[in-house]
Parts: sequence; structure tokens; C-alpha cells
Amino acid sequence: MTVVPEGDIAGLMSAEAAFEAVEATFAAMSRRSAYNFPVIREAIGHADALYGFKSGFDRDALALGLKSGGYWPGNAARGLTNHQSTVILFDADTGRVKALVGGNLLTALRTAAASAVSIKHLARPDAKVLGMVGAGHQSAFQMRAACAQRDFDKVVGWNLHPEMLSRLSDTAGELGLPFEAVSLDELGAQADVIITITSSFDPILKAGQIRPGTHLACMGTDTRGKQEVEAALLTRATVFTDEIAQSVSIGEAQHAVAAGLLAESDVAEIGAVINGTHPGRRSAEEITLFDGTGVGLQDLAVAAKVVELAEARGVAQKIPF
Amino acid sequence: MTVVPEGDIAGLMSAEAAFEAVEATFAAMSRRSAYNFPVIREAIGHADALYGFKSGFDRDALALGLKSGGYWPGNAARGLTNHQSTVILFDADTGRVKALVGGNLLTALRTAAASAVSIKHLARPDAKVLGMVGAGHQSAFQMRAACAQRDFDKVVGWNLHPEMLSRLSDTAGELGLPFEAVSLDELGAQADVIITITSSFDPILKAGQIRPGTHLACMGTDTRGKQEVEAALLTRATVFTDEIAQSVSIGEAQHAVAAGLLAESDVAEIGAVINGTHPGRRSAEEITLFDGTGVGLQDLAVAAKVVELAEARGVAQKIPF
Repeated sequence: MTVVPEGDIAGLMSAEAAFEAVEATFAAMSRRSAYNFPVIREAIGHADALYGFKSGFDRDALALGLKSGGYWPGNAARGLTNHQSTVILFDADTGRVKALVGGNLLTALRTAAASAVSIKHLARPDAKVLGMVGAGHQSAFQMRAACAQRDFDKVVGWNLHPEMLSRLSDTAGELGLPFEAVSLDELGAQADVIITITSSFDPILKAGQIRPGTHLACMGTDTRGKQEVEAALLTRATVFTDEIAQSVSIGEAQHAVAAGLLAESDVAEIGAVINGTHPGRRSAEEITLFDGTGVGLQDLAVAAKVVELAEARGVAQKIPF
Repeated sequence: MTVVPEGDIAGLMSAEAAFEAVEATFAAMSRRSAYNFPVIREAIGHADALYGFKSGFDRDALALGLKSGGYWPGNAARGLTNHQSTVILFDADTGRVKALVGGNLLTALRTAAASAVSIKHLARPDAKVLGMVGAGHQSAFQMRAACAQRDFDKVVGWNLHPEMLSRLSDTAGELGLPFEAVSLDELGAQADVIITITSSFDPILKAGQIRPGTHLACMGTDTRGKQEVEAALLTRATVFTDEIAQSVSIGEAQHAVAAGLLAESDVAEIGAVINGTHPGRRSAEEITLFDGTGVGLQDLAVAAKVVELAEARGVAQKIPF
């Protein structure tokens, strides 16, 4: 068995490698070579924790296993990350444990990779301004991954708590880009690509704030009740997602579907665009929206990549098991 | 993180320790201090494998985690066990991985412990003859665990393939007990306690073959469609189980419930008997039947015990993670 502790991930994994792994597994999902198993998510009644598993199997990559973990709100007071994740990979040929991989940094990288995949395949090639809604821990990963896909010359940003905008400003600075804190109206008016990465339960962006030609990656909604954009926006946009079943039940599309504004058949797989079985963006005026719900196969894909990199560099820690 | 590889389990764990762990978790389940999460079970479409997870949380024991693994029918040809299991325990206070424990031997021990718990609490105190239906790998574990609960003076056995009965005969010999291969009619006529441990999809034991006063532990049925005893027997017996929801859907009770012969409310928890909130056996003539379906909490309980024993003996292998 190979063990890759959390502390080793940063030295092994890159945003580029995460992008390739996530793009490949979205493609495999769409051609039905890979599928996610049902998600387990439980409020365990101890330490206010949410705990569960996301799991699946990619037959082409032979990636089998699960990400286990959850949210422990008391961890910060102990000097630990509140979100705790571990990926466990199994040998698809024998069922034996293959690898145990720290999943905290990987979760941020695979989530950022998903929106970057959507930008590559759906944003206008001439997109110049990136709009960020949300300035939490994940926003920096999102901005870095997005900027690898288009030649942005400016970042505009908004956050419910303006004092946190320094994270966006600092990250843009690292990327050599000017940053401007703006209102939501200004953000919609300036941005060609918008990433929403919040834990909001009320719509932040209104349909009327979005210009024709915009691409949105809505990355924050992964639970019933969460919402980042007005449901009416989904009727103006062409909607794509990682997994349709999640999109319409726990993703950003849940509200438009519940309101009868959108049908499940209106939501397309990003994997179909990657595979060329869906044309993707059809015009420079079309609004495209990617509903990133987060699937177990993303976690397996990036963890398998980490193990491959650790083995290639001869630093894989092997444990008899 | 503590690692206990499969090869170390036999030297650490005993049938007695498994019995105590399983009895305690059945009791915790019945007082609602412990619960199992939904089971994931998937035919993955590769290597003819069945793969999945059983998971749960015992708030009293602070045992949180899952058993992952499944059935790989091609393993035997590679010199590996077809059933592959691994238990992963998490720290209930922080969500971090706590231990990785080989689960193959533990699965046999926890399954045998469950029927032994039922024998302790439901069989007549003067039971003298043990009847075994099934002579596969698990039958030896079942017989050993059962014989620790009553002063049996004989074992009788039946198997679909009589050439496998040597396992039962050999195990009885180790326990210092005479063994007799019998027909199913003879088995029912002689046995005070009967364990069924097969992978049958048709009823083996008929209702008319069972004498008043018998205790049955039906341990083989854990999937829709499997069946070891005639459904009519469940109307003659008082039915107990580990988890009622599993008993009526994938356990031995599924057929009697589907036929309208038994209601979910007719099935009692073995934990209630352990806790004294159900009287258990009421007379020497009553037939009692334990429907052992197998729950994730049993796996967590025995794995937690292994980790405790490894730490107490100073042989726990600690891996930075």
C-alpha cells in the first residue's frame, strides 16, 4: 500500500495535473466508462460534525475508491482544518487497498480544476475580465486555475464581507493582474467569466446583472438549499454540469428545476463537450453556466495522479498491508 | 495513524474479544447510541466484482468509519481471498483518519460473534446438540463461537456438497466433540441450536423440520433473493435480528414479509434482549430465530478492539499521516 500524507501533497501535485485528471474523468463519465456511487452524508450527532463518503469507479483509469471525511466545525480551535478529507484507492483487479492519500489540498485543487475545465470548454476565447464572487479559502485556488485557461488582463471581485477581499487582491497580484473590488452590478457589467465560490443560501447574482456572452462557473452549491445565482438566470443560460443527477437535486440547478423553470433534460454534461458530442458554446452572445457540484470521481482522479507522481519520483511511501 | 495489516489480526484478536465488541455494539444500536449509515453495494462492471461500503457511528464507543471491500471472484486463481475487506476508522472528534485495519479475518470473527450473541441470549440453557447447515470457510468460525456459549455434547451437520463436511468434522474434533453427518430431517430432530451459514437462494430447512424449543441463527442471507429457511418457519418462531430495516429487506425475514406472513413490527432487535428491554425467550417450547444480516457497526467494533489490543501490547504500527 502506498501512503501519501497531507503534508506531501503540495510538493507532488500541481494545478495542471489536477486539471488533466479532472478533465479526463468528466469525459469518462459522459461516455459511461466512469460513474459515481450514491453519496453518504450524515450529521453524526457528535462534535456538530457532518461526515460521509463520495465514491465511484472509473473503468478506463481503473480508479476505484472513495473520499471519506467531512466538516468538523470545532477543528479550527484545535489548530486543524475544519474540512477533513482522506482518499482511499483500491485495486480494481483484486479489491485490495492500494493507496491512502491526504485529501484536503486535493479537494481544493480538484474543485478549482472543475471550473477551469468549464472555462476551457465554454468561455469565449477572447475573455479578458475574470469576476470572482466569494473570497474564502477556495477562491485563491479558483482564480489561479481560471487564469491558466484564458489571457485575463484584470480581476474584479465581490465578497459579502469586504474585509476578506485582500485574499483576491493578493492572489491577483501573484498572478501579475490588477484587482478591483466592485459592486455586483459592476462585476456583471465588466466580467467575461464569473466564478461563484461561496456557501450562500440566497441568490447573490441576479439574472439582470449578467451580460450576454458571459460564462459562469457556480462552484459553491453542493447541498439542498444552497444557492448562488437567481433561478431565472438558468433560463437565460445554457446549463452544463459535472453530474446531472446532482445538479438538479443538490446543485445550483435545483431551484430552477423546483420552480419549473428548467427541466433535467435542459442540463448538459461538461463531459459531452469535452468528448465533442455536445457543441458547447454556440455564439459569442450565449450565456453559459457550469454547475459544479463535486463528484467522488474527481477525488479519485487527483489522488491516483498523486500516487503516480510519487511513484515516478521514487518518493512513494510503501507500507506492508 | 495506526496500521494493522491483515497478517497481524490473528495474533491480536480472539473470538472472545469479538464477542464482547459485537454484543456491546448491538446493545448500543438498540438504545439508539449507534447507527449504521446506508449501505453502498455496486456491481462495478470489472473483474465481475461486487464492491461497496458498510459504515456507521457508535456514539458511546466513539467508533466512526467504514468497512470497504467486496467480492472478487477471480482472486482465488491469484492466490488471494475472494472476499477482500478493509476497515478504516476515523477520529470522531476531528474527522482525521485514525486506523487502517485488515478486515478479512475480522469479518469472519464478527459474523460468528453475532450468532454466538444470539445463542447466549436466546438458546435454551440446556441446549446439547448443535446443528450446522453449511460447511464453507465461515462454518468453522461459527461452530467455535457457538460452542463457547453452551455446553454442547455433539455436533450434527449437513451441506449441499457432502464432500465438504470434513471441515465441520475436523472443527468439532478440535473442540473435542463428536460429529455426525445427517439429513435435514435428522438435523432438525436432533439439534437444539441450528446455525445456517450458506449462500443459498432457496429455502434449505423447512418449517416442519424444526422442533419446539430450537434456536436458529440464520447467518447466510444478506442480499435480496437469498434464503436459508422456509418463510413459514418465521411465523412459528419469535424473530430477532441485528437491524430490523436490513432484516425485512435483505435478510432472512424478507421472504416472510414479502409474502405477508410477517410484519416488520414482529421482528425484535437482539440489542433489546441484551439491554433487558425485550424478554427474549419466554418458554422452553418457543422457537427463536436470529436473522443475522451483518452491519457496519460490527466491523467498526472489532476493528476498534484490534487497535486497542495492538496499542496495549505496544505493537501498534504508527504511520505519519
